[in-house]
Amino acid sequence: MAQDLVIGIDVGGQTTKCGVVDARGSVLAQTVIRTDTYDVVEPYIAELAEALNRIVAEAKGEGRIRGIGVGAPNGNFYTGTIESAPNLKWGHNRVEFAKLLSEQMNGIPVSLTNDANAAAVGEMTYGAARGMKNFIMITLGTGVGSGIVINGEVVYGHDGFAGELGHTCAVRNNGRACGCGKTGCLEAYCSATGVARTAREWLEMTDEPSVLRSLENISSKDVYEAAKDGDKLALKIFEYTGKILGQKFADFIEFSAPEAIVLFGGLARAKEFLTEPIQKSMDANVLPLWRGKVKLVYSQLKESDAAILGASALAWEL
Amino acid sequence: MAQDLVIGIDVGGQTTKCGVVDARGSVLAQTVIRTDTYDVVEPYIAELAEALNRIVAEAKGEGRIRGIGVGAPNGNFYTGTIESAPNLKWGHNRVEFAKLLSEQMNGIPVSLTNDANAAAVGEMTYGAARGMKNFIMITLGTGVGSGIVINGEVVYGHDGFAGELGHTCAVRNNGRACGCGKTGCLEAYCSATGVARTAREWLEMTDEPSVLRSLENISSKDVYEAAKDGDKLALKIFEYTGKILGQKFADFIEFSAPEAIVLFGGLARAKEFLTEPIQKSMDANVLPLWRGKVKLVYSQLKESDAAILGASALAWEL
Repeated sequence: MAQDLVIGIDVGGQTTKCGVVDARGSVLAQTVIRTDTYDVVEPYIAELAEALNRIVAEAKGEGRIRGIGVGAPNGNFYTGTIESAPNLKWGHNRVEFAKLLSEQMNGIPVSLTNDANAAAVGEMTYGAARGMKNFIMITLGTGVGSGIVINGEVVYGHDGFAGELGHTCAVRNNGRACGCGKTGCLEAYCSATGVARTAREWLEMTDEPSVLRSLENISSKDVYEAAKDGDKLALKIFEYTGKILGQKFADFIEFSAPEAIVLFGGLARAKEFLTEPIQKSMDANVLPLWRGKVKLVYSQLKESDAAILGASALAWEL
Repeated sequence: MAQDLVIGIDVGGQTTKCGVVDARGSVLAQTVIRTDTYDVVEPYIAELAEALNRIVAEAKGEGRIRGIGVGAPNGNFYTGTIESAPNLKWGHNRVEFAKLLSEQMNGIPVSLTNDANAAAVGEMTYGAARGMKNFIMITLGTGVGSGIVINGEVVYGHDGFAGELGHTCAVRNNGRACGCGKTGCLEAYCSATGVARTAREWLEMTDEPSVLRSLENISSKDVYEAAKDGDKLALKIFEYTGKILGQKFADFIEFSAPEAIVLFGGLARAKEFLTEPIQKSMDANVLPLWRGKVKLVYSQLKESDAAILGASALAWEL
């Protein structure tokens, strides 16, 4: 039988989602296992392999699996390893993830990269970037991730770790501390967490009235809901977030001259408040030759399937 | 006879340098013609073709020319055109440079790109980046140019104009006006012109004693000579220049994870004053995973030949 199916696996800190996917990007069967109940990787991989065999059977996919794609934090495409991933209990050192999984799966080849790169391949294969050879994927979630595609290929760089645009500098002086140890990173301002930090900072620094004042533990979702209700401070927070994103996107455009910037992730749901300030700031900061020319588009993948689809897309290239 | 030679052409605002080059990067014959004595391109191309035929004959290269490589301001690799080049009298509109030249040269194929990209290919073919698949070339001349190599190929982007790192933002607030119309660009601080501007700015803003005070029309060369004589202000200017370069290099590394950053151009001659501050600032600003890992190297091409060699290297890829 033709090898016409692939498996996509999204390794998160708490859970691991996996699915069997066909060439059109339909998820034929899927399941979820826990990531955080294992201190070492071997039993986790064993359970993962069992889960995969179950969904392959469910999708009537025996003998039809061409390859397995994995999106994982700190995943290295070149070596198939996960290296020093702080959010994975079993991933603090170097884990030969691709090799271990392939061995458990009767030698089916395994391709691995970080989640943002996987998302970029997914968008190129099934989503908003179909047909594009040059684009930059920006994932606006708890952090800011990125996957860069040049000439139809994800940029992995010399060591396999390229595309850390969330940690380029957005605010040079007196910038916020970032989880990575630096200050002023894009991620410290324009992730979901960054938006919540902006809210808390501004509430403390000003007396501006806002429904956000009545909340404890403000989240970016709270800011979004407030903006939808017309809350002025919340609207200003999105304007500020969009302005910083646009400033950095201008720099990225001057690097690789992409056809489009593709936004994905929880925060990208606030597109009605982000698009205009991003576009304005991007055009104000980029060289004239790119003004008004680089598209700003949003992911077209169904959010519940996106992580699996992104990872699965890697496997088509095996 | 084997087609074992190429021609390299460096189109500058005032003069055009061209040479016949062999596979080892030896310039077998070379000449220079004026660029700025023509208002339209056709007679300029005719004279250029005549000059080329002369040096081909001199190098005994008849029938041996595999291709012609051209480095030119605003050169577009995809289309072989020069577009809206402010410094070329005949280049204000769109000029079909590669096509016109190839026609005059009996159909020898012509490849064209901007000068910094040509320099990157030159360095990869004959110079400091031999064997490297991922590096970023930064040219520190009158302006700051860049040529980005990923997976062994120059990045041209969606439209052919990628790699304008000199116009990414170095100083966000209250930045210097740049020739491109924006403010705060890396080029406004770290080009030869930028260094001279820093000198003039600091002389005006402080009372610090310096041999530079006695000079009119300070150039970056003056600052370099003063630094060699131990002038404290001049030394501080290079420290500041290196610091800004390092800050931006950190961002670039987070984009494409290069093996090395290769410096070239007049200002790169001041390497004894630039290397340490660049390296220090690069390491202070980059993600821990790249600290101390990305090489900072200087061009190994003889400066008088570099422009021709860079352009000629393009032709080997035809």
